[in-house]
Amino acid sequence: MNVNGKHYRTIWLSEKDENIVQIIDQRHLPHKFIIEDLKTVGEVARAIKDMHIRGAGLVGATAGFGMYISALNAPKNDSFLSQLATDGEQLKATRPTAVNLAWAVDRQLEAISAVDGNINAKIAMAKETALAIADEDADFCRRLGEHGISIIEEISKAKNGNTVNILTHCNAGWLAFVDYGSATAPMYAAHDKGIKIHIWVDETRPRNQGARITAWELGQHGVPHTVIADNVGGHLMQHGLVDLVLTGTDRTTHTGDVGNKIGTYLKALAAKDNDIPFYTALPSSTFDWVMKDGVKEIPIEQRDGEEVKYIQGKYNGETVKILLTPEDSPAANYAFDVTPSRLVTGLITERGICDASEEGVLGLYPEKKK
Amino acid sequence: MNVNGKHYRTIWLSEKDENIVQIIDQRHLPHKFIIEDLKTVGEVARAIKDMHIRGAGLVGATAGFGMYISALNAPKNDSFLSQLATDGEQLKATRPTAVNLAWAVDRQLEAISAVDGNINAKIAMAKETALAIADEDADFCRRLGEHGISIIEEISKAKNGNTVNILTHCNAGWLAFVDYGSATAPMYAAHDKGIKIHIWVDETRPRNQGARITAWELGQHGVPHTVIADNVGGHLMQHGLVDLVLTGTDRTTHTGDVGNKIGTYLKALAAKDNDIPFYTALPSSTFDWVMKDGVKEIPIEQRDGEEVKYIQGKYNGETVKILLTPEDSPAANYAFDVTPSRLVTGLITERGICDASEEGVLGLYPEKKK
Repeated sequence: MNVNGKHYRTIWLSEKDENIVQIIDQRHLPHKFIIEDLKTVGEVARAIKDMHIRGAGLVGATAGFGMYISALNAPKNDSFLSQLATDGEQLKATRPTAVNLAWAVDRQLEAISAVDGNINAKIAMAKETALAIADEDADFCRRLGEHGISIIEEISKAKNGNTVNILTHCNAGWLAFVDYGSATAPMYAAHDKGIKIHIWVDETRPRNQGARITAWELGQHGVPHTVIADNVGGHLMQHGLVDLVLTGTDRTTHTGDVGNKIGTYLKALAAKDNDIPFYTALPSSTFDWVMKDGVKEIPIEQRDGEEVKYIQGKYNGETVKILLTPEDSPAANYAFDVTPSRLVTGLITERGICDASEEGVLGLYPEKKK
Repeated sequence: MNVNGKHYRTIWLSEKDENIVQIIDQRHLPHKFIIEDLKTVGEVARAIKDMHIRGAGLVGATAGFGMYISALNAPKNDSFLSQLATDGEQLKATRPTAVNLAWAVDRQLEAISAVDGNINAKIAMAKETALAIADEDADFCRRLGEHGISIIEEISKAKNGNTVNILTHCNAGWLAFVDYGSATAPMYAAHDKGIKIHIWVDETRPRNQGARITAWELGQHGVPHTVIADNVGGHLMQHGLVDLVLTGTDRTTHTGDVGNKIGTYLKALAAKDNDIPFYTALPSSTFDWVMKDGVKEIPIEQRDGEEVKYIQGKYNGETVKILLTPEDSPAANYAFDVTPSRLVTGLITERGICDASEEGVLGLYPEKKK
């Protein structure tokens, strides 16, 4: 999507030197837009581990490019493949719970090993595979937009073309993927088509991905938006100021329970209480095909309470962290919650929109039937 | 309640000089505990206006003491009463929507005017009335505690004496009143009686009254507590980690609709969805005896969006404000929401506990029947 009027993806090969991978170093957003060069596997690993980039789709794509860098730098002799395997392990260890990460590394290793040629052919395959993983991610998100736009168009028609107000939580934007995003894909599609929309951006405490990242990417692409405290959505819905709630997800069961950033469940309750549609957009790689009861089964990460007690922002031109609570008050930091399917109007996938139910999901993905 | 092991109220006459009013300057909490001397009406007015103190009960009590200061400083001649009237207007103008403020000033002016004696007798009456307003506020809150403790005791018994987990939002604590608080009164009563409790403290964005003030006062009094982001309560309730939700209110209709800090409605929805009791504690001065439909009728203050975009905390020993969002992203700041009575289990008043309904409230306050 656009930054300062120019189109960007979140990761790409440098135009000047295709041996260099470039990313947006998201740690500095929204206060600074910094592009970082990645030339070694160590630099790629650090970028993933220290969250210069984040988001399931982008973590996978970055690991894919990391393996291309590995192939470029590995010794051009018999230990080429064993070096790649070692580098792959290093990348996988950066964020052990990220499914896409291991998947991208393994896909690269398989593709490269399968090349029956010299090392240059293997390197070419590593490049091709890295680009393919990124293109596929962008393409899946683009298709989420193509399907999801119909929901926004329908509301727009019912409102005689007046602004459609959409509430979103956290960042399920293009900065979490390679392009377009998941929850944001229908928004960008609608905006680019000239449908009037306005986004209520939950700031999404404690890490404020909404206030920092979603607000920034919407603003850069020119989408009208307003940042709100996470407490506000219910009031807005009571007063007709929200037409649609649209979120991403970190894991959704094939029965339709949506695991997402902490606080999503509260917005879904308010949407239900006020008869407002609540949709979740996801590429099918995010479905869990085993779990049946998301509330009981999806494991919820507990992060360090310091993330609640301290907050980061801009002070005198610098990014600093300040203390919000009494020094010795304990804090708890549950990172995700689960919205039961009964509160979810529908799921937007790359194959279309379905009910948040086993029947609905398997209707779109019949090959997953046991 | 206790601060560093010593009992305090939020406002009192100096032990060394009864012509000086002392308050806790709450702007510095939780990072610094500063006691401020008030010797002139101008100082009292600034303390109210610039929110050195806040909270309906405490604002009223401070205005009462302000009129005592006015009486001390007014010329001891024929213009004594007219000076008091002028000072009363100055105090009333500090926070025009605070009902208790005007009420306290008017009560003082009436009491002082009614004294049929010399000016010293009038000053003595001003002192007596200031102390009476403060004592009555503390006494009303103490009674909220006496009634509300029964709810906690019952849960404690049902849990065989295991810890009762209570979630609260914003600060309806002793720092908003003269002592005990409203929502906190039952908590302090239970804790002081040896009932095991633990409080989940919503940080309460955007102004973080929970993280700053509620956490501080609970910690100082030794009540176990944990600060959480406002997003977390729903998840805790889904997983049996909350036994009771207990809040204060800024205005509650006599039909049981609870106007309170933004985000309260979301917690009430989650409590209902998980069969957890949701109670609101209030002195009867907070009832609105006219409005019938709180969601439609209670006016909701919209504050400056800068309060969302910037946040205050401690950095290098100093209290500073930092920017959280992109510089040019708009922010909206709705300060309150209304929880409809259907989500409220009951109301805790100084006369007892009642249903959140017209029948319930008028049952306790029959003199309000028309």
